[in-house]
Order: sequence, then C-alpha cells, then structure tokens
Amino acid sequence: MGIKVHGIPHGATLRVLAALEEKEIDFELVTVDLRTGAHKQPPFLSLNPFGQIPAFEDGDLKLFESRAITKYIACNYESQGTPLVKKEGKQMADLAIWLEVEAHQFDPVATKLNYELVYKTFMGLETGNAIVEENEAKFAKILNVYEARLANSKYLAGDSFTLADLHHLPGLQYMQATKVKQLLDERPHVSAWRKDILARPAWAKVVALQKET
Amino acid sequence: MGIKVHGIPHGATLRVLAALEEKEIDFELVTVDLRTGAHKQPPFLSLNPFGQIPAFEDGDLKLFESRAITKYIACNYESQGTPLVKKEGKQMADLAIWLEVEAHQFDPVATKLNYELVYKTFMGLETGNAIVEENEAKFAKILNVYEARLANSKYLAGDSFTLADLHHLPGLQYMQATKVKQLLDERPHVSAWRKDILARPAWAKVVALQKET
Repeated sequence: MGIKVHGIPHGATLRVLAALEEKEIDFELVTVDLRTGAHKQPPFLSLNPFGQIPAFEDGDLKLFESRAITKYIACNYESQGTPLVKKEGKQMADLAIWLEVEAHQFDPVATKLNYELVYKTFMGLETGNAIVEENEAKFAKILNVYEARLANSKYLAGDSFTLADLHHLPGLQYMQATKVKQLLDERPHVSAWRKDILARPAWAKVVALQKET
Repeated sequence: MGIKVHGIPHGATLRVLAALEEKEIDFELVTVDLRTGAHKQPPFLSLNPFGQIPAFEDGDLKLFESRAITKYIACNYESQGTPLVKKEGKQMADLAIWLEVEAHQFDPVATKLNYELVYKTFMGLETGNAIVEENEAKFAKILNVYEARLANSKYLAGDSFTLADLHHLPGLQYMQATKVKQLLDERPHVSAWRKDILARPAWAKVVALQKET
C-alpha cells in the first residue's frame, strides 16, 4: 500500500513532504493537475471533500489539511527519524502555542505577501503594492514577537526543531526571493533561525524534488 | 496559584471556558478591558505578545491562542472530566483533520457572518449584505461536507465529543440568533449535532457565565 501524497511540490504540500523527509519515510508524490481542476472532481473529492491539496494516504487511512497530515506523521512515526513533537508539560504547551501562531499569525500574512510578490510575478500579473505595504507592516510586528521568542529559545517550541518550525518552511522559502527577506535579515535571531531551518538536509531534499518537477 | 483565564466571556475566550468546564476545573476569569486597550499594553503583553485575548495561566505556565490553551487543558488534565482528545490511529488522525477544518474552513467564514449579523447589529452598525451573501454561499458548501461527515459519525472525530466539536461552540452559539441558523437547520445531521453539543451541561455553564457578566 505505502504512503501517497496527492498534491504538487509547491505551497502547503511542501509541509507534508518536509515531515516525511524528516522522518525518513518513503512516499509517492501523486501529482494533482490543478489546471484541469482535478482537485474539484472525483476521485480527488473522496480524498478531500473540500477539494484542496494536499491529501494523503497511508494504507487505508486517508487524511487532508497539511497540518493535520504532519501531526499524524509526527505522532504515528514518533520513534523514527527526527522527533517533531513534544508531549510533556511546558514544552508541549510551547509547541501548541507556536503551532497556532504559525497558522493564525504568520501564515495569513506570509501567504498574502508571497501571493503578491512571488505568484503574481511568476504569472505575469501586477503586484498589488498597497496590499504588500499593508502586509509588510503587519509582518514586521509579527516578526518582532518572533525575534523576542527566538532570543530566548533556539527553536519556537524549545531547544530542538519541531513541527512548529517545520510549518514555516514553505512560506520562508518563497520569501527568500522577495524584498520581504529584508524584514527577516534585520532581526538577528529570526535570521539565524530562518537560515538554520532552511539548511536542514530534509528540506534540501524537498527543494530538490521541487526543482525536478 | 490556580488557573486564570484572561479575556471576556465572549468570542474565542469561550472555547477555553468550555474546555475548563468539560474538565471540571476551577478557574478565575480575569476580565480584560478591551475598551481601554488593556490587551495592547503591559502587563497583558507579557501574557500574549500579540496583544489578543484569551491568555491563560496555570501556576507558572503561561499560554495564549485559544486552541493551544484547549489542547493544553485536554492533554494536561487528560484523566479528569470529559476525555477531549484521541491518541491512537484513525481516531487521532480524524481529530487532527477536524481540528484543522474548524480553524481553516468553518471559523473564517463563521466569524465573518457573525461579525456582520451579530456584532454589527449589536453595535448599531449597518450589516454588509454583499459580504453576508458571499459568505452564506461559502458556508453552505462547507456545511455540505459536515453533513456528509456527520451522517457517518456522531461527532466530528468519531463516536464521542472532542475538542474538534468543542471549538465550534462559540460560532454556533452566536449563529443561533441569525438567519444563518436556517443553513444548519436544513441539514439534518448538522442540525442534530449542533443541538447536541450546544446542550452539553458544560456549555450551559459557559452561557450562564456569559449572561451574568
């Protein structure tokens, strides 16, 4: 049966690929053709009724939502590869906090910036400068909180890399080629964290897969 | 020391209160005066550097983000009150999926509808009818997926109530007094689920606290 990731080597699917690489788990990437709307039709809708990528199969088990898939991988394959979750006391609480911060603070703003500055540029569309300016201001404030956190903690949930860091990888990767990188570079602890997590061998494998396809 | 919830008996804070009531845990609700901007100033910023309610203290441990707090409560007080998490195999995977669905599908749309139809009406502001119409259409599609899920499963993560259901309570409660309730009523399994979870004794205690203050 094995593990199948349904998606494309871009965007949220990358979170799932990063978790699998950290866990040294073999998988098959089943490409979903978004141009023909394959994700809005059967059979894909049996994998995710919301019609969004990625979706995931581990034998008979089917999952969707990238952050649910990474949590499943981290917990179900806990004993192999990189430990990605914390299960006790303060570290568990810190992991829970920073998983939510990524989802509700970082990601909405990072996604808007990357959409305007990376996707629209790639598609030959005009960047919305007012949207960029508004979201850069928001992002700077968010990064100030990250800077304070990372001044006291090497990674977001404590002294080791976890899912809380991993979930940021796609957003940070795309941002590297934009002027938003400056906002990261200006903050020494954020900058060191960004470089550290983007340099992980598992992430290098994900980026290599992205370039291949 | 004891447990303190910093917030107001409205909105996201209600998730935390519901989890505490399900776990039969005593707590103190420390009201944050949003009108004076207390949440954007010290000492509140030492509890949540993003300046948002709720924040939470359990002895020396400080948390923020409502869904991180409920996860901490569910896991750290696992053996008392209502079990709110699943830790094994398919049930754990289903819980992970539906926690993300609430956060990324249900909540963004429910929050926009409740803002337009509940908050604006309460404040004497004009409801944005175009926003309501757009989000009602989105919400109907989301509820179709819920209806299919709840036709096969009494609760979102399986045969018992979990955090995945609990996180919906504030949104569903506010919606009851609006025309959006019709969208829930039209779907028999969604309707039965809504009635069941809003009738939980722990939620009744939260609603009573809301009416007192």
